[in-house]
Amino acid sequence: MPLASSAPTLAPLADLNDAALRTRVQHLLDNKTKPQGALGQLEALALQLALIQGREQPHLDAPQMLVCAADHGIAARGVSAFPSDVTWQMVENFFAGGAAVSVLARQHGIALTVVDCGVRHDFLAGRGEGAQSRSGLIVAKAAYGSDDCTQSPAMSSAVCAAAIAHGEAIVKALPGNVLLLGEMGIANTSSAALLMARFTGVTIEQCTGRGTGLDDAGVAHKLAVLREALALHAGTTEALDILAALGGLEIATLSGAILQAARERRVIVIDGFITGAALLAAHALQPLVLQRCVFAHCSAEAGHARMLQHFGATPLLSLGLRLGEGSGAALAWPLLESACRILNEMASFESAGVSGKDAP
Amino acid sequence: MPLASSAPTLAPLADLNDAALRTRVQHLLDNKTKPQGALGQLEALALQLALIQGREQPHLDAPQMLVCAADHGIAARGVSAFPSDVTWQMVENFFAGGAAVSVLARQHGIALTVVDCGVRHDFLAGRGEGAQSRSGLIVAKAAYGSDDCTQSPAMSSAVCAAAIAHGEAIVKALPGNVLLLGEMGIANTSSAALLMARFTGVTIEQCTGRGTGLDDAGVAHKLAVLREALALHAGTTEALDILAALGGLEIATLSGAILQAARERRVIVIDGFITGAALLAAHALQPLVLQRCVFAHCSAEAGHARMLQHFGATPLLSLGLRLGEGSGAALAWPLLESACRILNEMASFESAGVSGKDAP
Repeated sequence: MPLASSAPTLAPLADLNDAALRTRVQHLLDNKTKPQGALGQLEALALQLALIQGREQPHLDAPQMLVCAADHGIAARGVSAFPSDVTWQMVENFFAGGAAVSVLARQHGIALTVVDCGVRHDFLAGRGEGAQSRSGLIVAKAAYGSDDCTQSPAMSSAVCAAAIAHGEAIVKALPGNVLLLGEMGIANTSSAALLMARFTGVTIEQCTGRGTGLDDAGVAHKLAVLREALALHAGTTEALDILAALGGLEIATLSGAILQAARERRVIVIDGFITGAALLAAHALQPLVLQRCVFAHCSAEAGHARMLQHFGATPLLSLGLRLGEGSGAALAWPLLESACRILNEMASFESAGVSGKDAP
Repeated sequence: MPLASSAPTLAPLADLNDAALRTRVQHLLDNKTKPQGALGQLEALALQLALIQGREQPHLDAPQMLVCAADHGIAARGVSAFPSDVTWQMVENFFAGGAAVSVLARQHGIALTVVDCGVRHDFLAGRGEGAQSRSGLIVAKAAYGSDDCTQSPAMSSAVCAAAIAHGEAIVKALPGNVLLLGEMGIANTSSAALLMARFTGVTIEQCTGRGTGLDDAGVAHKLAVLREALALHAGTTEALDILAALGGLEIATLSGAILQAARERRVIVIDGFITGAALLAAHALQPLVLQRCVFAHCSAEAGHARMLQHFGATPLLSLGLRLGEGSGAALAWPLLESACRILNEMASFESAGVSGKDAP
């Protein structure tokens, strides 16, 4: 697909906090046949979905799972328990239907699109206009892997802007009104931890975890490498520059996807630590993006709970997941459907002829 | 349906902890294309389902939601924010499809059966052999509501045994290999709190919550009433006698349903505080019943977290629900399906050609 390289549109997002609609939806929820608030977080979710869509009866159509993949220069510093080749091997596994996100998307009828944002591997025979196409794969390489951010910015400004623009263009072309986000990229918890440290002000120790399964010595080494990167880019202060310096190609593409989905008032389902890092950048550019975001789960990755705190988010699930790929977003998906159904299908006390609280 | 009244069969349950199968299933999980343990609680659930079914590839067939309803004599003491008529009104709402559990069961293709275990209302025109039938309703009234347990046992031994036998017989007749449990009965958090206090040894203060929405004065009154009941039955020590003295008709029916489902090695999905109280009684009679139980969620009802601790349970969801009906069990259901699919459909590192951890 032709993808233009451009800076992200920074016209502010619309504020979706429509007080009158909020009151009407809350009244509907309070009159459903249940004690007020008895469906807990599901009621808050129903209200949020109604506000995102600007209507009392939200409907979720043609949910799209976008899994963004790329390789990371910092992987060469030994910060991951798995070799970089796993990035492309897992992309092939997504297509073959054997990865967790493939299985879960299939279970729930979620369309799966994989984006090669910069994997160091060619998935298509041939390049450019003559290249093969593969169903469900979008090749949008802003670069052939990112650079090692302990030596230079991970991406130049132009490459980072291209990756963001790719994300925007890809979402524009997707059907439906819900975007679920996932990622694959060996070493990307390193990139996410760096972004979290810079965007939240939390210490790098609190942002850094085991990723795919480092032992204590591995975490200590990862932390030392991440400190080098932070020191090198300490003078970088603008959001886009931080993303370019410390991010990754899949993360920047995800940031663009989030920004575009937010403009279109799609419901955005954030998966775990890496998609959360992409949201940190998008949030720094467009604070109101959070109104559109549903947080699927709190993962077992060390920094994720604090990252959710930064967003003021209450995640739907807390199952000790630490896989990424969008697996947590897919697992949470039925709860979004349930929230809509509660609002759209449950009877009211009046319609069902059920007595209210403290009736005689 | 003809339902025999009999004491519960107390032949011990089979121990499903097959060490060899556990090892084989854990090996399968560890070789799926993900870091070991990266799917967290979903992996533990997959292992449990495999052990319940005694096979490496568990399959969940024709899930059945059983919602047991009854009225409670103790409701006359003003322990609930809602009037007793709500019990039968909500049963009608279950049929009309407007209750939360109706909506959620429909979403997930779960068959819904409602049991009138002792509602003070006639759902069928006529009684006995000439009675009308209604699809999805089983009338199995062991009594016409329970008695006020501050004055006498809530049920006689015979009535309690009949309710248990009803639960056993109903489950025997249901298809499928998964039983999801729910309930309806104004004042049944009172009964559940009493059972919890007696079966777990936790103080009644810690077992008593707001139910459908009592204010502080309401909770204080409820607690005073519950203390009367505990004092009256302090000399009762056998599990079945405690269930009869302090339980309810829907709770005893649920206990019977749990015992029968456990014998048949069905997967049993426990909803919230009330179905948990039914499990307390079943567990006192048959400790190995827990091997078959999946705990859907931790509710907002005050005593529920401690009850789950007593079972050593890790619930799947924690959404601040406090509705009952089986709504939490229905919400958790897709996670059980996901757990099976992870085990049955995900590729292994070898089959997908993905490099393992610490590969060169």
